[in-house]
Amino acid sequence: MSDTEQKKQFVEDLTDQSDDFSRWYNEVVRKAQLADYAPVRGCMVIRPYGFGMWENIQRLLDARIKATGHQNVYMPLLIPESLLDKEAEHVEGFAPECAWVTHGGSEPLEERLAIRPTSEAIFGHMYSRWIESYRDLPLLLNQWANVMRWEKVTRLFLRTAEFLWQEGHTAHATAEECQEEVLRMLEVYRAFCEEDLAIPVYAGLKSDSEKFAGAERTYTIEALMRDGKALQAGTSHNLGQHFAKVFDITYQDEAGKRQFVHQTSWGVSTRLIGAVIMTHGDDAGLRLPPRIAPIQAVVVPIWRKDEERQSVLEFVKKVKAAVGDRVRLHVDDRDQYSPGWKYNEYEMRGVPVRIEVGPKDVAKGAVMTVLRVERKKESVPLEALATRLPELLDEVQKALFASASEFRAQHTATATSLANMERHFEAKRGFVAMPWDGDESLEAEIKARTSATLRCLPLDTNAFAGVEKGRKGIALFARSY
Amino acid sequence: MSDTEQKKQFVEDLTDQSDDFSRWYNEVVRKAQLADYAPVRGCMVIRPYGFGMWENIQRLLDARIKATGHQNVYMPLLIPESLLDKEAEHVEGFAPECAWVTHGGSEPLEERLAIRPTSEAIFGHMYSRWIESYRDLPLLLNQWANVMRWEKVTRLFLRTAEFLWQEGHTAHATAEECQEEVLRMLEVYRAFCEEDLAIPVYAGLKSDSEKFAGAERTYTIEALMRDGKALQAGTSHNLGQHFAKVFDITYQDEAGKRQFVHQTSWGVSTRLIGAVIMTHGDDAGLRLPPRIAPIQAVVVPIWRKDEERQSVLEFVKKVKAAVGDRVRLHVDDRDQYSPGWKYNEYEMRGVPVRIEVGPKDVAKGAVMTVLRVERKKESVPLEALATRLPELLDEVQKALFASASEFRAQHTATATSLANMERHFEAKRGFVAMPWDGDESLEAEIKARTSATLRCLPLDTNAFAGVEKGRKGIALFARSY
Repeated sequence: MSDTEQKKQFVEDLTDQSDDFSRWYNEVVRKAQLADYAPVRGCMVIRPYGFGMWENIQRLLDARIKATGHQNVYMPLLIPESLLDKEAEHVEGFAPECAWVTHGGSEPLEERLAIRPTSEAIFGHMYSRWIESYRDLPLLLNQWANVMRWEKVTRLFLRTAEFLWQEGHTAHATAEECQEEVLRMLEVYRAFCEEDLAIPVYAGLKSDSEKFAGAERTYTIEALMRDGKALQAGTSHNLGQHFAKVFDITYQDEAGKRQFVHQTSWGVSTRLIGAVIMTHGDDAGLRLPPRIAPIQAVVVPIWRKDEERQSVLEFVKKVKAAVGDRVRLHVDDRDQYSPGWKYNEYEMRGVPVRIEVGPKDVAKGAVMTVLRVERKKESVPLEALATRLPELLDEVQKALFASASEFRAQHTATATSLANMERHFEAKRGFVAMPWDGDESLEAEIKARTSATLRCLPLDTNAFAGVEKGRKGIALFARSY
Repeated sequence: MSDTEQKKQFVEDLTDQSDDFSRWYNEVVRKAQLADYAPVRGCMVIRPYGFGMWENIQRLLDARIKATGHQNVYMPLLIPESLLDKEAEHVEGFAPECAWVTHGGSEPLEERLAIRPTSEAIFGHMYSRWIESYRDLPLLLNQWANVMRWEKVTRLFLRTAEFLWQEGHTAHATAEECQEEVLRMLEVYRAFCEEDLAIPVYAGLKSDSEKFAGAERTYTIEALMRDGKALQAGTSHNLGQHFAKVFDITYQDEAGKRQFVHQTSWGVSTRLIGAVIMTHGDDAGLRLPPRIAPIQAVVVPIWRKDEERQSVLEFVKKVKAAVGDRVRLHVDDRDQYSPGWKYNEYEMRGVPVRIEVGPKDVAKGAVMTVLRVERKKESVPLEALATRLPELLDEVQKALFASASEFRAQHTATATSLANMERHFEAKRGFVAMPWDGDESLEAEIKARTSATLRCLPLDTNAFAGVEKGRKGIALFARSY
């Protein structure tokens, strides 16, 4: 088999989602060269195309985090065991999955150091030194960092021993301001997911069984994957005064009295890349939301005869010049691959718009644009491209959100009893909304019988108009990642 | 003492550089709130103002790295000992300063894992899997990451157990292309330091005694600090085929023959922040180059009577609107500090331009700009501010480079013998250039007698017109960080 045939097969060999979703996921991550397993158990290598997605996620989310008044810092990677030990629930939740440093050079350390699984302890320690007066509040910090959780079962982007994330840590004078911040950042995450990643999410409160180790309350945004399983896409925690009390983080209020601060923490991770893949992908491969696509449009030149080659490539230069830096454009002028092969490759890689330039297009002074969504074609005159191409990208962004929203609507059912719920999950997946009184034993029973967990109590119950509200509103159940 | 008096003293208490440079450095880092020591030995916390500098450094350098064709990736934090062991010189250089992970959760690991001190080993391992044909070359990757070296003596930004950096790792088909890349990235670093950080540097080759563990040749850029000590600001290594041979990184050439690749690696780190501080700072504190200053201009409103307050603050709003996002502007309208105190504070923090707005300025429809460099004053009409302010920033950027270049010229001497060299370093510091034949025992002798080390053999010997060239050109010696 020739090199080209091998590569063609490589693209065509993608498993259908309906045959084996999990296999489809693994294949698409590897074939689109998003990530690879590293030679350390459960750790990943993020390759340029996958990292390009992360860079766009970082840039867009960072702007939203800064627009809400936060500043970035960098805290150390290692946390002394004694600091981690201070908050009892926190250490119980995280110590079993910490990687431990025991030696520096050839010398054993006096105290073990954990590679941060999250940084509440180290922020707590520093906050107790930095915060003195009410004038120092609110303290609104964030960091972009790597963290490590020694997971047994791993999956690229979804659950790896090391992953990248941002973690916000804030301190406030009052419980009210603290809770406002928790909901503000949850809303930042919701808007980011829906507007930039084109992923519709339900925002809500976690039940006690699912909350963060050391938090008073955990809020979450929950997305639905194409296989009907839910994915927790981001969390925002109200830490109350748990950490303030054990780390002694106090401030002098206006009356000169010492008070404990109220804290929040919130984070999203490289898991979002997994969410993008599983929300939008189809049997031809990835479908990337234009706002985070490393390549927003790819130009594929087409010619049969050598004399056509030059005029086509000349025209491609004009296309590039016309578009400028309005769009992240890539020209694929490799000779060794056919246009057809390139179409397959860029569909696999989820590039939102393909721009075909053949001799007929050149003669017309136009290009043929093909959207990754439904392969919609349109001939665009060269002089209109600079304005039309961004519109087309916007169209793809909206179409992906609409398609994911429709899928979610089709896969959100209702139940009024445990029996309902069981029947549903025998045949189907997706979200099931039910009236909720806060019954923890029912939550446990549903989990035991259906493997669906309580994803959240949605804040906006209007989205579930047909569901009666219980004393605690509505609960959303789903099987999940 | 009142809170305000305490804070005033806090600023005025800065040690003079000439009294104790090292103390001046530590004080300015802490007082300007750039960084703090963490509760882990030798690790630092980078605070918002220091991290703002790093974010600007990242953004500007990353653009230069991408403009030369490189893409970013993320490699894992942990490196199995067996991988690190493969290259003999490399492991000998780095293993003694590795932090070792020995446990995951409660279980001991089968093999120790090093927190990366640098990532040649892990890139080497992945490159052997990714590179097959000459078409895969050159492979031009970079990563921004944290690394760890278990140093005994640490100093914020200059030498800490953990630091942030970028590390480029590339693979090439031929030795020529490899060497071109090494020099291309050295030039990227030189241009970045001189144009963005306003730090003049000498670019040159390291002697064998100072080269990177595992490299064939190391190139460096060397800067001069205000105390006359040199600082290595960035390095670019020609790794030859050392790693290719031990990691078996081969490609099939056009003739179908297996060949080993040729590799480079290159990096700069948060150490650059230390270089900026020690190149430009003066007895009033930091002086930040506008291109990387988190705050480029600070507006200080001034009023005595309450009736002035409103008109001044109204005018400040107009100033803000006029400047827009052309300049990173900060308005300090805190009531509890006097204008004079704010002047001191922002001088300490090195803000390039101060904009004073008092009742007289408002009456004139102008603001008073004061440059951090030589406190140069100029009244700028409001309508001219949007164009004048960027010009003033440019003036500060140039003045800092000119001042650092002049300082370096005054502190670059010449010697023709060991005796010369000894006499020089008895009384003075700075660089000393001497003709060089490549005599390693002379290099060792100079180091033993003067504590000056061979910083580099400068590539551009024209800068040392008065110095005769030896068989290996010219060698630059200095005491160093």
